[in-house]
Amino acid sequence: MAYRTTAARLDRDQSLRNRILACAHARVVDGGFAALTMQALAEDAGIATGSLYRHFGNKGELAAEVFARASQQEVDSLATVLRGDGSAAERLARGLRQFAARAWNSRRLAFALIAEPVDPEVDEQRLLYREAYAELFERLLEEGRDRGEFQVPSIPLTAACLVGAIAESLVGPLSPPARALREAGHRADDLDSVCDNLVTFCLRALGAGQPALEN
Amino acid sequence: MAYRTTAARLDRDQSLRNRILACAHARVVDGGFAALTMQALAEDAGIATGSLYRHFGNKGELAAEVFARASQQEVDSLATVLRGDGSAAERLARGLRQFAARAWNSRRLAFALIAEPVDPEVDEQRLLYREAYAELFERLLEEGRDRGEFQVPSIPLTAACLVGAIAESLVGPLSPPARALREAGHRADDLDSVCDNLVTFCLRALGAGQPALEN
Repeated sequence: MAYRTTAARLDRDQSLRNRILACAHARVVDGGFAALTMQALAEDAGIATGSLYRHFGNKGELAAEVFARASQQEVDSLATVLRGDGSAAERLARGLRQFAARAWNSRRLAFALIAEPVDPEVDEQRLLYREAYAELFERLLEEGRDRGEFQVPSIPLTAACLVGAIAESLVGPLSPPARALREAGHRADDLDSVCDNLVTFCLRALGAGQPALEN
Repeated sequence: MAYRTTAARLDRDQSLRNRILACAHARVVDGGFAALTMQALAEDAGIATGSLYRHFGNKGELAAEVFARASQQEVDSLATVLRGDGSAAERLARGLRQFAARAWNSRRLAFALIAEPVDPEVDEQRLLYREAYAELFERLLEEGRDRGEFQVPSIPLTAACLVGAIAESLVGPLSPPARALREAGHRADDLDSVCDNLVTFCLRALGAGQPALEN
């Protein structure tokens, strides 16, 4: 009986933990990490703030886990495209367009993941995930170099340049001030121009000749 | 008399504030923002921790000011080179090499400025300073485009790509783990390969033909 009780309790704990993370994710999707306060989250999850702290030691720890889960989805999604069919340049172009479109369609979350000022625990995760992205690009660059598609002096350094260029070119268009501009009817970048610029920039940087213009 | 007393006191306050900032800067140069604790800083400056809090409300505020002062020096230094003599491509290559060399020669500080996980107040400043760098590049890109040196679809988006590529390609080589690797005799990037890679990547990305290989 003792064992079964414990197992049932662990299940309940795990299920509550997942519910908390789902509520936390929803808060970040709506209002970024700024909207992720322990009190509001406890209300969303229908538990006492004290119970929340039994599952997550502090807000930074919780934010880091929300960040890591959301980022892992992006890494996986990009990896699928980069390992797909076509030349390395085609796959890179497709991956960049998909990455930008996913960010575009969940702008507040994407800005939160890439650049929102937040607890140092999230900054730690940002460094780790930028390495995860860099590893994906390193594999693609090796393949493209072996096929004679890319000419790059250093694969790890070039992969880092790609990661930085992609992230930074999305910060401006995704940022909350950019949204305010758009809503006020002022000039703002559209997804197509962000994608075209990024694909051109990255493929040329790799010495890949004509940019692949397909979707 | 009252006026003179007040003026003398303001001078003393300003001078103490500058001394605190100089001590704080020295701590970040040596050990990054991780080494910047209010207690250790008060000891360095030879004042009580309470006095420190009269000048800076909290550590985040202090760290943000250390960040902004150090970053402004880098922006100014880059601006001088980008506005110098030669073609736009030559100036960009020279600017990139100087920026990387300055980071290389003060590695711990450069890593702290670019990527060290730290208080959200510093992240806020990072966003602002990345815009300052982007503005410098925008002016250079406009000039290079007008002279027919660069072909870029969007100047603001391309400037952001440059800022991201530069920052991210330095994170790995500057990071404390990279230093440990170098000290243990393992492969690590050297300044020349970082510079060559960065210059090639950026100039090609701008459609600038042959990279300028001068220093």
